[in-house]
Amino acid sequence: MRSNEIDFLINWGDTDMAGIVYYPNYFKWFDIAGHQFFRSCGLSPKKLEEEQGIILPMMDTRCTFKKPLYYDDLMTVVTKAVEVNNKTIKLTHEVYRDGDLTGHGYELRGWVKKYGHGIKAVSIPEEARLLLEADKHTSFKKPQFNA
Amino acid sequence: MRSNEIDFLINWGDTDMAGIVYYPNYFKWFDIAGHQFFRSCGLSPKKLEEEQGIILPMMDTRCTFKKPLYYDDLMTVVTKAVEVNNKTIKLTHEVYRDGDLTGHGYELRGWVKKYGHGIKAVSIPEEARLLLEADKHTSFKKPQFNA
Amino acid sequence: MRSNEIDFLINWGDTDMAGIVYYPNYFKWFDIAGHQFFRSCGLSPKKLEEEQGIILPMMDTRCTFKKPLYYDDLMTVVTKAVEVNNKTIKLTHEVYRDGDLTGHGYELRGWVKKYGHGIKAVSIPEEARLLLEADKHTSFKKPQFNA
Amino acid sequence: MRSNEIDFLINWGDTDMAGIVYYPNYFKWFDIAGHQFFRSCGLSPKKLEEEQGIILPMMDTRCTFKKPLYYDDLMTVVTKAVEVNNKTIKLTHEVYRDGDLTGHGYELRGWVKKYGHGIKAVSIPEEARLLLEADKHTSFKKPQFNA
Repeated sequence: MRSNEIDFLINWGDTDMAGIVYYPNYFKWFDIAGHQFFRSCGLSPKKLEEEQGIILPMMDTRCTFKKPLYYDDLMTVVTKAVEVNNKTIKLTHEVYRDGDLTGHGYELRGWVKKYGHGIKAVSIPEEARLLLEADKHTSFKKPQFNA
Repeated sequence: MRSNEIDFLINWGDTDMAGIVYYPNYFKWFDIAGHQFFRSCGLSPKKLEEEQGIILPMMDTRCTFKKPLYYDDLMTVVTKAVEVNNKTIKLTHEVYRDGDLTGHGYELRGWVKKYGHGIKAVSIPEEARLLLEADKHTSFKKPQFNA
Repeated sequence: MRSNEIDFLINWGDTDMAGIVYYPNYFKWFDIAGHQFFRSCGLSPKKLEEEQGIILPMMDTRCTFKKPLYYDDLMTVVTKAVEVNNKTIKLTHEVYRDGDLTGHGYELRGWVKKYGHGIKAVSIPEEARLLLEADKHTSFKKPQFNA
Repeated sequence: MRSNEIDFLINWGDTDMAGIVYYPNYFKWFDIAGHQFFRSCGLSPKKLEEEQGIILPMMDTRCTFKKPLYYDDLMTVVTKAVEVNNKTIKLTHEVYRDGDLTGHGYELRGWVKKYGHGIKAVSIPEEARLLLEADKHTSFKKPQFNA
């Protein structure tokens, strides 16, 4: 099962007046981590759309929160393709700080082709399926920002 | 079962390059609609914290997307308190455009008291429970922005 | 000189860990207030683009901050068309809470026509100029959210 | 004159329906680049506040836009401390894509001490001034996300 990890430094603007991360930002990171997951598989969303007219619309997403995240925390999002269905892909995202799980969730995305002015869910081609299901892990580590 | 509805006009900045609403913004609206729901019950989050040291942290949230939303769409979020548990509250949010459901989800929030430097989930007091479970509907309609 | 005012309630998610509004949100409000200003003149940005291929790209913007804004504050943004030049429009935005100026700034936008795959700044037509320069004030007041 | 550069990959969610970056995001990057600039000088905003009660509130900011930025663009923000005044610091930010300037602006921040429940602008201490004025350049390069 393909997986990818990517680091984020929690920014000042990610927090709210409770002094912790404002929860909708988790989904901003899920979206970024998801895009990076597809890039890491060789399935850049930008190229998928430009070269094949394939887009990956969000169908369903969820997040469960375990512990607060704070400004300047370095977090890691681990993304896995847990389901590669006929016309949909389910990614899970786990968020860690120092090895501690602070939250986790999923994104269910469609595999959708643009036709003229319309769109239509289509079967995920074998080539993409192989890339998404490969037993491979990639990692994008942040430069040390807190030095 | 208490419910509240609130209107939002979709702003230019809520969209992404696909020309539709960027999905994490749904949770921004859930959060705003949730705060307004509590206000509409007479349980202003600001006053709850200032007067009673009660905060309402997010524990779990989900959203299912049915149809895209566009710039200048007028949407309505209908929020209901579907569960008032011992120490948690589950709100559902339904998003409509012209009576059409475009997405729906929930937020599960804790009822948590601040003690010194710590916090602790506590039982929802009877007075708050009565307000949250009252059979009452409130509505906050937008002035007509698109005139 | 045409002017418009619009109310915003400061949302929880607009704040940061200092307990005040995160400053880039001022520009989100400038953008919303600017769009609403154009609508109030009868120059809906959506219709301008769909019907005439006219877009209003941001060229320059500034904001000066005088006082912090807090969660649940009701603010008013007053927008004025202070310059209607040949191919550009300068809007000023003043942000008030209870009559107190908390910040102010401007947006300089181009009047730009889409041609095939390109764009080109064009002269603001007389009809639009008359609307932008009319001595008229409009107001969009929020329903009372804090009741 | 101290300077720092930091890379950002333009995210899907940074764009709007015009297919380009939504302009208030520039200020989000200015804020992140500014915080990173202070860290790079050995003046971490987090430590300044925790250890010395010093905060750096935004007083004035501006951005001039030259060229649009697109999804998946790799941009570099170059930050310089152009003025270290008695109680304020002016940072300039230049945004580049492939060596091309796409926008530029500044942030004017105060050097402010928290006293009990109040705050007061104070003189920037000599030690901080030396760090901010040092003739030194630092750089935080992104791992290659677009591989």
